[in-house]
Amino acid sequence: MSFTNLALVAQCDAFPYADVDPSAYLARTNTYFQLRVSGHDYALGYMLPSVAEVFRGVAGWELDDAERVLTLTGGDSAVSRSAAVEKTMLALRETGHFEVLKKWRGELYAVYGRDKELLFNVERSASALFGVVTYGVHLTAYTRSEQGEIKIWTPRRAKTKQTYGGMLDNAVAGGIASGESPFESLVRECGEEASLAESLVRERARAAGTVTYWYVRDERAGGETGLPQPEVQYVYDLELPLDVIPRPGDDEVEEFYLWSVEEVQEAMRKGEFKPNCALVVLDFLVRHGILTEANERDFIEIVSRLHRRLEFPTL
Amino acid sequence: MSFTNLALVAQCDAFPYADVDPSAYLARTNTYFQLRVSGHDYALGYMLPSVAEVFRGVAGWELDDAERVLTLTGGDSAVSRSAAVEKTMLALRETGHFEVLKKWRGELYAVYGRDKELLFNVERSASALFGVVTYGVHLTAYTRSEQGEIKIWTPRRAKTKQTYGGMLDNAVAGGIASGESPFESLVRECGEEASLAESLVRERARAAGTVTYWYVRDERAGGETGLPQPEVQYVYDLELPLDVIPRPGDDEVEEFYLWSVEEVQEAMRKGEFKPNCALVVLDFLVRHGILTEANERDFIEIVSRLHRRLEFPTL
Repeated sequence: MSFTNLALVAQCDAFPYADVDPSAYLARTNTYFQLRVSGHDYALGYMLPSVAEVFRGVAGWELDDAERVLTLTGGDSAVSRSAAVEKTMLALRETGHFEVLKKWRGELYAVYGRDKELLFNVERSASALFGVVTYGVHLTAYTRSEQGEIKIWTPRRAKTKQTYGGMLDNAVAGGIASGESPFESLVRECGEEASLAESLVRERARAAGTVTYWYVRDERAGGETGLPQPEVQYVYDLELPLDVIPRPGDDEVEEFYLWSVEEVQEAMRKGEFKPNCALVVLDFLVRHGILTEANERDFIEIVSRLHRRLEFPTL
Repeated sequence: MSFTNLALVAQCDAFPYADVDPSAYLARTNTYFQLRVSGHDYALGYMLPSVAEVFRGVAGWELDDAERVLTLTGGDSAVSRSAAVEKTMLALRETGHFEVLKKWRGELYAVYGRDKELLFNVERSASALFGVVTYGVHLTAYTRSEQGEIKIWTPRRAKTKQTYGGMLDNAVAGGIASGESPFESLVRECGEEASLAESLVRERARAAGTVTYWYVRDERAGGETGLPQPEVQYVYDLELPLDVIPRPGDDEVEEFYLWSVEEVQEAMRKGEFKPNCALVVLDFLVRHGILTEANERDFIEIVSRLHRRLEFPTL
């Protein structure tokens, strides 16, 4: 099995586009339920009917079958809405109905409204059920030789990791907890995942935009499949001195390789990268002038789809 | 008048999004005509009804009012279709009906199909009437001090220039003629517009992706307004040595300024940049970690909309 770069992008940016493929888009959005909070008449995410159904009759929620909308009615502030969501999620966790809740993280993700205001927080493992936008940071650590040759630090995830075990990753990646800034999240993860000194990261890591896409959860992510997952990844570059070696800081990473661009691209073609990490690599290669229209047939589509406009409010 | 960065983006990426604002999108696409070529049942662009109407009864064209499609029926190869288009355009130029044709360039733009095959060439000034995707190159030339401070070479267009006269521009920018590669187009324009040595450009210019957007032509572009114009700009960075000074190579540029990022941003807020050039500057600032989520409220939306996925086939 060999993956083109466009296939790698399509694997992650899997939700149909309303303009490019209207019938596929409508087939989904006309059967899914919108998630809303009361007083805010717009979608925060799309939910599978089988998921929305579970909220029928639950206190704090209102299911409108005609309009296909699930509304969070419990609470009228971020604090009270978050409490209502937590109560429901804890109860659902007890019932064992949803597989994804079995990987309870004890970590809160933020959901924002159109004025970028915090609407509510939701347990990380539960965010997938609601189809809301989630946020993360991804860092590409690399070296540059005197001749200008770039090599990319590429970790392999521990085979024992529940999700995407044994696959290749970006040097550092993690979800952003509610209230945490992307850069502070990055600094923390760099210490935890790659044993990189805080001072080095603060001095040398460079923000380089975002990679955004609309994933549809597959079996490799664990738990329910088919859940639509719009994601925003803040991307950073970190050119490391040749004598700084990233090392696994926890048991989530097996080993770091320092690979040439060709070695990285070969592993991508083989499908060895965790899907969203392949997108971050592609964005890096585009920004650094390595992937261009001269060597990539689908260049224009790839660059666009690495930066999908999400139809939901974002921070 | 002060422009936010999002307002600058929205000014250029002005066509509604099908998912974010379906009613505005449908209001346009349900009244516009699609341009097609026979045997290829998909849109290559959208045309205003007032423009499509002019093709009624013209040899080589078929206007379907029910489906709202204008089909180029003349020719069954790129060569024969291009000849049919040219014949019509020359005739229309004679009639003086369209303002945009009064700026006839004698330069051909390429229109591609879904297999990235050339479908036909069209005179540059006429491409606007068809609403097809056009391609250009934009280069940001900059200097970096020993302390790492970036300054951007910013030209002011001649006041006498017919379009966007007196406005600020990217160091080098130009349309890509049919058959020309983006990089060769860039090298040529760097000589013509900024007097930069070919060897310097070939050695130091770095590809950095694309900026894509769907413009709707306004009065500053000259000629008919309201024409939808999807555009792909290949973007390049060129870090210039401190002793290399770009100089106007023709009478299209008045003067080059070497401005700090703050000076550039101030001019952007004042709306002094040609609209699509402001987008290229924003993309540069994002990729270089200058514009981030920490200093730009609309960061996520801006980065996405700088890379719009176009619904038409692209090269």
